[in-house]
Amino acid sequence: MSNATHNPQLNSHGELNHLLSIEGLSREMLTRILDTAVPFTEVAEREVKKVPLLRGKSVFNLFFENSTRTRTTFEIAAKRLSADVINLNINTSSASKGETLLDTADNLAAMQADMFVVRHAASGAPYLMAQHLATTGQDHIHIINAGDGRHAHPTQGLLDMYTIRHYKQDFTQLTVAIVGDVLHSRVARSQIHALTTLGVPEVRVIAPKTLLPSGIERLGVRVFNDMKEGLRGVDVVMMLRLQNERMQGALLPSAQEYFKSYGLTVDKLALARPDAIVMHPGPMNRGVEIESAVADGAQAVILPQVTFGIAVRMAVMAMLAGA
Amino acid sequence: MSNATHNPQLNSHGELNHLLSIEGLSREMLTRILDTAVPFTEVAEREVKKVPLLRGKSVFNLFFENSTRTRTTFEIAAKRLSADVINLNINTSSASKGETLLDTADNLAAMQADMFVVRHAASGAPYLMAQHLATTGQDHIHIINAGDGRHAHPTQGLLDMYTIRHYKQDFTQLTVAIVGDVLHSRVARSQIHALTTLGVPEVRVIAPKTLLPSGIERLGVRVFNDMKEGLRGVDVVMMLRLQNERMQGALLPSAQEYFKSYGLTVDKLALARPDAIVMHPGPMNRGVEIESAVADGAQAVILPQVTFGIAVRMAVMAMLAGA
Amino acid sequence: MSNATHNPQLNSHGELNHLLSIEGLSREMLTRILDTAVPFTEVAEREVKKVPLLRGKSVFNLFFENSTRTRTTFEIAAKRLSADVINLNINTSSASKGETLLDTADNLAAMQADMFVVRHAASGAPYLMAQHLATTGQDHIHIINAGDGRHAHPTQGLLDMYTIRHYKQDFTQLTVAIVGDVLHSRVARSQIHALTTLGVPEVRVIAPKTLLPSGIERLGVRVFNDMKEGLRGVDVVMMLRLQNERMQGALLPSAQEYFKSYGLTVDKLALARPDAIVMHPGPMNRGVEIESAVADGAQAVILPQVTFGIAVRMAVMAMLAGA
Repeated sequence: MSNATHNPQLNSHGELNHLLSIEGLSREMLTRILDTAVPFTEVAEREVKKVPLLRGKSVFNLFFENSTRTRTTFEIAAKRLSADVINLNINTSSASKGETLLDTADNLAAMQADMFVVRHAASGAPYLMAQHLATTGQDHIHIINAGDGRHAHPTQGLLDMYTIRHYKQDFTQLTVAIVGDVLHSRVARSQIHALTTLGVPEVRVIAPKTLLPSGIERLGVRVFNDMKEGLRGVDVVMMLRLQNERMQGALLPSAQEYFKSYGLTVDKLALARPDAIVMHPGPMNRGVEIESAVADGAQAVILPQVTFGIAVRMAVMAMLAGA
Repeated sequence: MSNATHNPQLNSHGELNHLLSIEGLSREMLTRILDTAVPFTEVAEREVKKVPLLRGKSVFNLFFENSTRTRTTFEIAAKRLSADVINLNINTSSASKGETLLDTADNLAAMQADMFVVRHAASGAPYLMAQHLATTGQDHIHIINAGDGRHAHPTQGLLDMYTIRHYKQDFTQLTVAIVGDVLHSRVARSQIHALTTLGVPEVRVIAPKTLLPSGIERLGVRVFNDMKEGLRGVDVVMMLRLQNERMQGALLPSAQEYFKSYGLTVDKLALARPDAIVMHPGPMNRGVEIESAVADGAQAVILPQVTFGIAVRMAVMAMLAGA
Repeated sequence: MSNATHNPQLNSHGELNHLLSIEGLSREMLTRILDTAVPFTEVAEREVKKVPLLRGKSVFNLFFENSTRTRTTFEIAAKRLSADVINLNINTSSASKGETLLDTADNLAAMQADMFVVRHAASGAPYLMAQHLATTGQDHIHIINAGDGRHAHPTQGLLDMYTIRHYKQDFTQLTVAIVGDVLHSRVARSQIHALTTLGVPEVRVIAPKTLLPSGIERLGVRVFNDMKEGLRGVDVVMMLRLQNERMQGALLPSAQEYFKSYGLTVDKLALARPDAIVMHPGPMNRGVEIESAVADGAQAVILPQVTFGIAVRMAVMAMLAGA
């Protein structure tokens, strides 16, 4: 706990004040978040899916990059906690009027915001906001990183861990493969940090060389360029989304070629353990990174990931608000 | 009730589970919806315009086709029932990321949605979603069709029936004329099914031949190409909106020509019964399908249609939710 | 009070029914609004930032001109009063379908709206709506002008007055300078009317001749073209935002030139009284109309303006609703 005070995500008591990345959070903290999420899965099954934990709090969804889907998950989580939610799609507003990120943060802070959920195309943007709020004495406002550039997407990483724990219980006996465009993926970074922190002994990344960042091994993963080799004997297959725009560039030959080598098919999945689960952060490109027979098959836990995602986001919001 | 189990809108007890179209609903069911709407017109006149019937329910407005106006009516109806409402304009989000309609439905279902209000440019899209939810065991999620392609717009049809019943009481004594672009109108289809089911003895459609679907007579309507003939002696005039885009095509000579032949003027209205009411689903093209003197005149009930529309939508939502 | 019945903002008892402009409101009315706002600043500091004054009321944000920032302040004010808020960005909806402003007003009135917050590019649009609602017997719906063309932005003017009173207490001893593009500024008009009505003995406007409307002196202000002269001895400096689009036209040489002559720098600010406060309606163009050292300096009260703005908007909404 000695370096806790240096971690911008934690307050001086070592409690979660912002959720900016999985990196830097202890195994205890990750476990505490997952444990807190458990009762929230039950809220969603009630007649009245609402608890008053954030009543009268103002949660701002600051989406500098458009993502209806991710915004929806945070909006619904906040509303089920009874918060007032304000959606701001900032690409079409102040940003075009030339206001800076920090001026936007200052302004919303002055409106007595309680929480910012931030998605931004620039890696580090939520960190910058958190640092700025600290220097201006506004760090009672909590920031959740909802995806920043290629850097991190911590709630996605957490909901993935919740899903794995739900189906596999013990992280310390698992072999997990992450497959696809690791290079451009903030999701992959968050997953790798979470898996290694939670004690997964073997984390594999499977990708063509052009879609792997150099030095990825230093994060504690084994690299495979051949998908069949990489999938052999794994307990968990975590597929990554292939951004359409990548397929038009020089990094990839074609969607068909990609699917042939790195698409998850029934045949390739047969190389994993028979009880292996298949995950995907969505939205899926069927026929590009995953075959429909797998996406809709018995081993897929892609929709439970979504369900757990709401509970995990409710848990993070409740913990940050000290509720 | 024997074919109730085959109607995708009804559950095994013959109760309304989805509202997908007027077609296939019995006179009893239509009457029950209209009856249920009556007390909801009073909610809107209270100091606190809210009832807790849908408290803690998650209603998703899924607009794959933009319509602020229709979305607003559903949003306000749901909020007055105390639901949590999430708006998704999907043309600009997942759809552009290549996610399919059914993947979107699955994802929102996994977020424990209670109700989808769906507007889509493709006829049948809400049916497809309802079928899919049934096959995946998710048919506790209720779907309201808020307009699909040229097919149906059932809440519009219902609010129109509410309006007619309010002013004319007995459907079985009426002559009703529907005027305008029947060919492209989902509103007209819903109106025709509702009027014939509720026992209106004479339903007329008035339109140029180019704006009439072939075989329309089979729906039980009388066709008129001459508006003056068609309006003679009617109790109710239901104008349709002329889509601007139609006027640029080959189907119509010009807005001026159209107005001359099929625009509702004070002169033409004089051919109807003196106590005839004039309806329009909005938004109106003044000077194209309707003269302002009529739109703002004593016989117009266009704004009451809007008021009743909120009550009807509240009634449908409350019935679907079993509240 | 004899002309109260002629003021479209007041009802027959002289009470505020709409807030359309500062012009035409008495010193007593402005003071009453500011006084009403005081307790609302405390609501925002509570654990649960909500009061039930507008519970069950429907507030429509009608933004015919996009402004996420202003819309957000009204949305949060209404939600903290427990209203149901519906956002309509009408440039992309009915307006493009050809529906008129007044048809939109009629339709939303028929949905039993309680309040319209209206932003429109055309000066006078909210007046037109208020007049129309009066002629149609709908003036129980309250209109707040959230900025109309070059005409008025009354809640901005009121929050500015709240800020000045907070820091300077007595309006009748002050010299206030308004600096920048007065010609195109609805904010400047609202500020000038508010300051003169509240008894500020000297209101100065500082601008290049090309950015001053002719005859501005008639509003009771002193005109300065030289900023250094104009700032000498003032208690309050109110900067205006320079619209980017102005800088591309013939009215201004360049942003750099403008900054040199009319940008508020530490050096120029030194000519004002040492305890002068610096205000800006936001969003700021740093380095164009204001130097960052001033914007972030000890004399700036720009963020308190935002905070007070929420309280002032809550006060106006509560007064209009008779709460």
